[in-house]
Amino acid sequence: MATDDLETLRQRLATFAADRDWDQFHAPKNLAMALIAECAELVEHFQWLNEEQSTALSPEKMAAVRLELADILIYLVRISDKLNVDLLAAARDKIAINEKRYPTEKVRGDARRASEYEI
Amino acid sequence: MATDDLETLRQRLATFAADRDWDQFHAPKNLAMALIAECAELVEHFQWLNEEQSTALSPEKMAAVRLELADILIYLVRISDKLNVDLLAAARDKIAINEKRYPTEKVRGDARRASEYEI
Amino acid sequence: MATDDLETLRQRLATFAADRDWDQFHAPKNLAMALIAECAELVEHFQWLNEEQSTALSPEKMAAVRLELADILIYLVRISDKLNVDLLAAARDKIAINEKRYPTEKVRGDARRASEYEI
Amino acid sequence: MATDDLETLRQRLATFAADRDWDQFHAPKNLAMALIAECAELVEHFQWLNEEQSTALSPEKMAAVRLELADILIYLVRISDKLNVDLLAAARDKIAINEKRYPTEKVRGDARRASEYEI
Repeated sequence: MATDDLETLRQRLATFAADRDWDQFHAPKNLAMALIAECAELVEHFQWLNEEQSTALSPEKMAAVRLELADILIYLVRISDKLNVDLLAAARDKIAINEKRYPTEKVRGDARRASEYEI
Repeated sequence: MATDDLETLRQRLATFAADRDWDQFHAPKNLAMALIAECAELVEHFQWLNEEQSTALSPEKMAAVRLELADILIYLVRISDKLNVDLLAAARDKIAINEKRYPTEKVRGDARRASEYEI
Repeated sequence: MATDDLETLRQRLATFAADRDWDQFHAPKNLAMALIAECAELVEHFQWLNEEQSTALSPEKMAAVRLELADILIYLVRISDKLNVDLLAAARDKIAINEKRYPTEKVRGDARRASEYEI
Repeated sequence: MATDDLETLRQRLATFAADRDWDQFHAPKNLAMALIAECAELVEHFQWLNEEQSTALSPEKMAAVRLELADILIYLVRISDKLNVDLLAAARDKIAINEKRYPTEKVRGDARRASEYEI
């Protein structure tokens, strides 16, 4: 039984906001700002590390990064709920677009393409 | 049968990157940058709208915003995979923290608290 | 005597970093991350305010916002220095481009254009 | 004669907005969003480069990055104008704070400090 999914998270966050009367602050515009602010907290953890260091975080940093990722998911689910967007369906549609845009045979091992066009 | 979940998405994105030999670019540091860049594309859609307008997007804008949300989820799932973070478990842990930090009776209808402390 | 200008600031920041042996961390990639993280701290101050409230900050909030703006300028000057970019010359060039792109008679009072195309 | 300074830029941008009747969109909240969106465009240029590559951009990329830096300065000057903040005075105040917070003898060559505390 998959109670542990995005839909459960969506409902829990909606209840969390309703219980606190915070819906009034949760216009998509405002949630987009909160979402990018959380992403920036993630970025801060990596800004003075090189790429290799970023793959091997200390346990303390890893625990902090894990909660930043949680914050990003929380706001992403919240704004999607407010806009009535089914996140997983949207991601499937976007991946289908990306698969056409970056055919394997065309971009494979091609750093220039990978770096100029991002998914 | 829940094939339509975050785990399925995680696997699909891992395959997508492996097929294109893009894993070499996907250090957590780099993915954090790509993630915030996608968030900024979402923010751009809202920057000249007021809050009310942000709740009633045109169909064209809505379609574009939906794909931006997808991009954010895609990079969020990808960086979490690279860091071996279970996003939903992390979100549950973070919500438990937030519930203690912002008890309903203490913050209800209190704009100051809602605006000073964010989830 | 204009000692109080961007060039003075550039030199002071270069000395600040050199004195602390921090140049090793100041690759443009890393400074771009630090710069966006500072912008996000600015965004956080505004995320739960509406537009009108954002024009009338409390003295405490104003003092904090002022220092966030300073942080953004500091990293902007620093990354520009590392890339040998003359910020003011670049801004003049960009304004000339914008003046052609958005001729007054064409965009005046046209919210759609103002919101779809930003400077 | 220093016509080529931040004050000249501030005035030119104020005139640019007034001529187009765009002041109505330029609440500090909105300008903070536009500012971070521009920073993200800068970040995008660096996200798939490593630090060393970020110090040696191609001429084409350098030209694009230069204009992104210009965009950031433009919005930074614009929001500071709207908030009546003297950017250079604010930067001087912030540097004085940083000099106390990170005394040379204490942080010199100490990557941990440099990476945990940023200016």
